[in-house]
Amino acid sequence: MDKLPTEMTVVAISQPGGPDVLKPQTRPLPQVGPHDVLIKVAAAGVNRPDVAQRSGVYPPPPGASDLPGLEVAGEVAAIGADVTRYKVGDKVMSLVAGGGYAQYCLAHETHAMPVPAAFTLQDAAATPETLMTVWHNVFERGGLKAGETLLIHGGSSGIGTMAIQLAKAFGAKVIVTVGSQDKAEACLKLGADRAINYKTEDFVAEAKAATDGAGPNVILDMVGGDYIERNYDAAAVDGRIVQIAFLSSPKATVNFSKLMVKRLHHTGSTLRPRSVADKAAMVEAITAQVLPLLQTGRIKPLMDSTFPLEKANEAHRRMETSQHIGKIVLTV
Amino acid sequence: MDKLPTEMTVVAISQPGGPDVLKPQTRPLPQVGPHDVLIKVAAAGVNRPDVAQRSGVYPPPPGASDLPGLEVAGEVAAIGADVTRYKVGDKVMSLVAGGGYAQYCLAHETHAMPVPAAFTLQDAAATPETLMTVWHNVFERGGLKAGETLLIHGGSSGIGTMAIQLAKAFGAKVIVTVGSQDKAEACLKLGADRAINYKTEDFVAEAKAATDGAGPNVILDMVGGDYIERNYDAAAVDGRIVQIAFLSSPKATVNFSKLMVKRLHHTGSTLRPRSVADKAAMVEAITAQVLPLLQTGRIKPLMDSTFPLEKANEAHRRMETSQHIGKIVLTV
Repeated sequence: MDKLPTEMTVVAISQPGGPDVLKPQTRPLPQVGPHDVLIKVAAAGVNRPDVAQRSGVYPPPPGASDLPGLEVAGEVAAIGADVTRYKVGDKVMSLVAGGGYAQYCLAHETHAMPVPAAFTLQDAAATPETLMTVWHNVFERGGLKAGETLLIHGGSSGIGTMAIQLAKAFGAKVIVTVGSQDKAEACLKLGADRAINYKTEDFVAEAKAATDGAGPNVILDMVGGDYIERNYDAAAVDGRIVQIAFLSSPKATVNFSKLMVKRLHHTGSTLRPRSVADKAAMVEAITAQVLPLLQTGRIKPLMDSTFPLEKANEAHRRMETSQHIGKIVLTV
Repeated sequence: MDKLPTEMTVVAISQPGGPDVLKPQTRPLPQVGPHDVLIKVAAAGVNRPDVAQRSGVYPPPPGASDLPGLEVAGEVAAIGADVTRYKVGDKVMSLVAGGGYAQYCLAHETHAMPVPAAFTLQDAAATPETLMTVWHNVFERGGLKAGETLLIHGGSSGIGTMAIQLAKAFGAKVIVTVGSQDKAEACLKLGADRAINYKTEDFVAEAKAATDGAGPNVILDMVGGDYIERNYDAAAVDGRIVQIAFLSSPKATVNFSKLMVKRLHHTGSTLRPRSVADKAAMVEAITAQVLPLLQTGRIKPLMDSTFPLEKANEAHRRMETSQHIGKIVLTV
């Protein structure tokens, strides 16, 4: 590999605001810590938290890069003194603490995964954030088991399309909610058993009808607002509802007797603030249990669109329209 | 044992209403099913659900007796054809599906437990409902572990006083909320580490202060209403909040981003509608893990007061004042 440059092109948040506050800048390369790999970024995934960070409502955690970008794929360009898992030249994909919108990005060696054989680097860049979010929330937190039913709100999102594939691969039945016919078709093609159009159908009634009246065992919700009590209405007895975002609102008025009488579990999590060790544990579990399914291409992120890094503003604009189906990726 | 009478005295709910709708009646003895034991009731515990049932807001589940009373202790007077666990003359305590306010009451043999050596029959009658409620919600559902902190709202109630003792016996730290100084003292005497007077102190701030800022790991809540969001504020990261009643209100407006960001688990349950098998499983776990602590009297229900069966109205009146500390029991 060529000698490393001292500077790189990045896309930074010049000030809080709309998509056009994203501006190319030149920055020094990040300092490689003892357990870091420096990745020469080939592609970077775009995620909702990037949009929230750009808008000024989701500041990066202490110590993290101020640049947006939570997942990247590319070639290892340098390694820290104590790194044992990867060497220069390895192709990796990784969740990162920020800084993905750049030519070079640091990742902790325990968070990187080898790029699966069946994946392009764009596929790989679209994988870590959604895979870890779905794995942790649906399986580790929600405890989804084979034979159970998962209801996914936002079925055609990056998270949703990954959740459909993972849940099916592990033997669950999958119901999704979507806002259009083409999104419904995309979800059914990925393996969803039922797609409910929330604009024309009542998801509570339809999810119950699709489960012989029992209701889904696990609900993955990124909507919040009035969906919260409706999730309580829809869920099966002993159901688990996992909250990963609030595209509608985090505030809601709810009758909690429904939660008590049905013995529901309502929980949730966010990935970014988790400790290095927590993330490493997720990567380890995924490496053992999911990576084999990625190697063969059985599970693969559904790609919506790619934009060159410099056009990150357009990528954000597309995400904010919610017209996308699957993942949006920046190429570097 | 003498020959069984054909009729018995009971206290029935003559119509929905205040305590004085509870009226003595004469009824035929209940029919003993193949797995039932017929208990000659020496004492019956009084519980909040009895009050709710009397008021007309908590109808008995299908197939259950219309008589109030969810726990009894006494001598086995008859057994069903397939009963193997108990014989006539054994002294037992049991959760029952209703019908405890009576001279005779049926219990499923898998729900009965032998009366612990250190217990009077009044102690025994005060035990099953609170013991099973606390065991299931705090340990099985809330997953309380040694070294963790439990916050109990309503620390001086029957449930609260049992929860204090059980949690301490299993190595947890215990914080309670109470409404008066004498209730605080009763809880501290039972082993609570800290009693917060909710009338003069902010339980969120005080529970955090008592845990070096971390917050309790498990919260047992029977209040609801604005306590729900305050529980989210008080709880530790990864905390579990278990809802067992709503003395305030089941409805609340809540900011669920607190639940997500702290990765809380909010759950709850009610005991009465659980299946015969579910209740039997709880009794089995309790028999193995808790009964030894009852045998020696290390754990014993805190008794508030006893009333003769015919004065059940006075017992209800006392419960509704919330002046009681510990359990109220009817003697037959």
